[in-house]
Amino acid sequence: MATYDPRSFRAASFHDATPRFADGSDSPRDYLERCLAVIAQREPTVRAWVVLNEAGARAAADESTARWKAGRPLSPIDGMPIGIKDLLETRDMPTQMGCEAYRGNFPKRDNAAVWALRRAGAVVLGKTVTTELGGAHPGPTTNPFDQSRTPGGSSSGSAAAIAAGMVPATLGTQVGGSVIRPAAYCGNVALKPSQGGINRGERQATSMSTTGVHAGSIEDMWQVAFEITKRAGGDPGRPGLVGPPTPPEARRPMVLGVMETEGWAALDEASKAAFEQVVARLRTAGVTVLRRDDHPMLEAFERALVGTQAMTSAITGWENHWLFRNIVAQNPDGISARSKAVLAMAEKMTPEDYRLRLIEREALRARHAALAPVVDALIAPACPGPAPLWAGDVVGQPLKPRPTGDAVFNTPSSGIGAPAVTVPLASVGGMPFGIQVMAQVQMDAQATAIARWMLGAIEPVVA
Amino acid sequence: MATYDPRSFRAASFHDATPRFADGSDSPRDYLERCLAVIAQREPTVRAWVVLNEAGARAAADESTARWKAGRPLSPIDGMPIGIKDLLETRDMPTQMGCEAYRGNFPKRDNAAVWALRRAGAVVLGKTVTTELGGAHPGPTTNPFDQSRTPGGSSSGSAAAIAAGMVPATLGTQVGGSVIRPAAYCGNVALKPSQGGINRGERQATSMSTTGVHAGSIEDMWQVAFEITKRAGGDPGRPGLVGPPTPPEARRPMVLGVMETEGWAALDEASKAAFEQVVARLRTAGVTVLRRDDHPMLEAFERALVGTQAMTSAITGWENHWLFRNIVAQNPDGISARSKAVLAMAEKMTPEDYRLRLIEREALRARHAALAPVVDALIAPACPGPAPLWAGDVVGQPLKPRPTGDAVFNTPSSGIGAPAVTVPLASVGGMPFGIQVMAQVQMDAQATAIARWMLGAIEPVVA
Repeated sequence: MATYDPRSFRAASFHDATPRFADGSDSPRDYLERCLAVIAQREPTVRAWVVLNEAGARAAADESTARWKAGRPLSPIDGMPIGIKDLLETRDMPTQMGCEAYRGNFPKRDNAAVWALRRAGAVVLGKTVTTELGGAHPGPTTNPFDQSRTPGGSSSGSAAAIAAGMVPATLGTQVGGSVIRPAAYCGNVALKPSQGGINRGERQATSMSTTGVHAGSIEDMWQVAFEITKRAGGDPGRPGLVGPPTPPEARRPMVLGVMETEGWAALDEASKAAFEQVVARLRTAGVTVLRRDDHPMLEAFERALVGTQAMTSAITGWENHWLFRNIVAQNPDGISARSKAVLAMAEKMTPEDYRLRLIEREALRARHAALAPVVDALIAPACPGPAPLWAGDVVGQPLKPRPTGDAVFNTPSSGIGAPAVTVPLASVGGMPFGIQVMAQVQMDAQATAIARWMLGAIEPVVA
Repeated sequence: MATYDPRSFRAASFHDATPRFADGSDSPRDYLERCLAVIAQREPTVRAWVVLNEAGARAAADESTARWKAGRPLSPIDGMPIGIKDLLETRDMPTQMGCEAYRGNFPKRDNAAVWALRRAGAVVLGKTVTTELGGAHPGPTTNPFDQSRTPGGSSSGSAAAIAAGMVPATLGTQVGGSVIRPAAYCGNVALKPSQGGINRGERQATSMSTTGVHAGSIEDMWQVAFEITKRAGGDPGRPGLVGPPTPPEARRPMVLGVMETEGWAALDEASKAAFEQVVARLRTAGVTVLRRDDHPMLEAFERALVGTQAMTSAITGWENHWLFRNIVAQNPDGISARSKAVLAMAEKMTPEDYRLRLIEREALRARHAALAPVVDALIAPACPGPAPLWAGDVVGQPLKPRPTGDAVFNTPSSGIGAPAVTVPLASVGGMPFGIQVMAQVQMDAQATAIARWMLGAIEPVVA
């Protein structure tokens, strides 16, 4: 079992390999083969993948190799092996969504982001495990740093594949905390863009879901997001990710605010201490870090956050309820008991209940927007401590409601639609404990620039 | 060939049949059989349907008959036979979207609105013809009042089925003018709700598409829309249709504004005269009708509307381009030359071009919102004259760009996201020429109430 140390851990990265593709000392095909070798070694335990398309990936990597040799790569990510969360459609692999009802589902078309990745030359290697329909019911993936622990969810396989060094980047999706949290449990960097930043393609059915990027390096994270939106844009009606065509330069913030969320009180002491050490190191590096007691608008924002978990759950539950009921009507065993419980909650709501929740959400967005002149960004734990233990459901015992962990630190950015970046800056008990940077809506590049600065300037904390 | 006279034409209606369902003097099954008899008679010429599920409809109608007899209908539309535009998924019929690439497509699930209709007890009778993917390339449907003319599009079959008296209501969808215009060419009443008013289910992929209702009566139109949103809500993140649980009472407006749009100058003289007669009758009925010369804000709004057609086309083209390219990549003959031309235009755009179009759209929305204290609603022709002649493409000749008619009078409500109601208040040369009422965003009930008043208080114009 590998113990995680944020000071020495290195995930796979791609941006630093490409200079050798042009002179032939390395190639996308060789890069892919190295990824496949790691997968062969780690996959039996990690179980990050639902399906791999090795033949298709090799053919794509060979084409990319030829383009780099000819000096005509399609983009900086031409040849990058990438994993796609199994909620997103791919023309050459099934899309089964971790759900019995979608077993064998194979629409033979590409999600907008997948389509854009292929046009940028990326090598679509396989589908990564998702919890059932992106909800709470887990798949088989284990945490690469401790197989008795969850990798987090719902982007379980996407986060674990990065942690295991299998690929340099993967796509995930977040509705509550499904990118930022698993990334934090797995030592990834990850971007959950502003709402609608990356075109969700066929998956536009809920108002808080976002396609995000998990990566081993912040350079690859940004480049993948940028190359997608360059080609497929953001969600319909949204401007899409706005920012520079290469990774934003590291930028030291003047003022950061700490966001405690509803999760702070329940955070374990070791994780709290690790976070406080990060804050102390930020201050040593010259950043003003404001706490809720330091500024009345931060305090007001924290008070507004109370209830965010329930509000976001209600909104998403309602938005999914016709789809879930549709599935159950055709196949009573098509979704898990966990998802049926979510459906039962949603079916107690009226359209008026839903509208009132939307108004709450608007109010929260306004509270957050008001912080723009106060702080350059907010920082917070990206997860409530290190990844919890998980050994599977036990027959005859009540279902644990959140086997992939709690999204309490993530629902603020999901509800507000604000960009968040997971920064792997700490470990607790030998497991990753990620920090997040959350910026104003549309300020994805600013969140990335601050995260990049933190990665370079702040000594990681081992607690 | 039937000539259309708006003073005497009566389409099928359902709300006035239900009182006899309880006492057994009529039944949903008998109602359905009458619909099927009309379909048997008219369908060989009209060609409104892609597929009918007669057995499923009869079974559903029998269940409804039993509910009404027991005094327990699920809703006021329990037992209503309804047609579903073939862009929307239905669990018991294929969804082929008028498109070669989707031939045989059969996802076996219900669109959110279809799902809600079934829960309200409606009888989902069949799929109605759409133009290819809701674009310009026409299907086989003819105008029920003159088979040498188009029924309009893209909701061709949904509009024609109402005109032919086949069913009391159908679902359509609009991105540019695909509900309001075919309804106007076919003597329907129709509601294009505020953007997101009716949950689009799996069809959320463009920012201006809206699910709407075609009907033979304004009562059925409202009730269908209401019963859907009561169960499935609006689009995710939207409040959905807000209004009373029964059709809004007729309401005489104090002040209406005339909206000329970019289409006014090219409107034929007979249609212009018909519209002016409607305006004159509104004034006689005591309504203040403002023209662009009467109020500087109306004039400013008209000036802002110049370019709306191009702006909305660009936005929709861009939003569809990855999907279209995806189709063509797999099946070069999967879409028509007309759709390929749309794709070629879109592929010339950059993400920045798209963002600038979104900003134009926001500015137009602000201009429209500013009219709220000036007029109760806007009125305009719902189509640029009566339905054009259409005999199909001619091999060897250039493709006519808009065989189902021009959306120039419809793109304002689509771009703004405002509700519009088609009111069948005129004929020109024996063909329907619909008028539209357009209200502020979310004021669907107000648009409906004014339309209802016009239907009762304004003598239809025959020109």
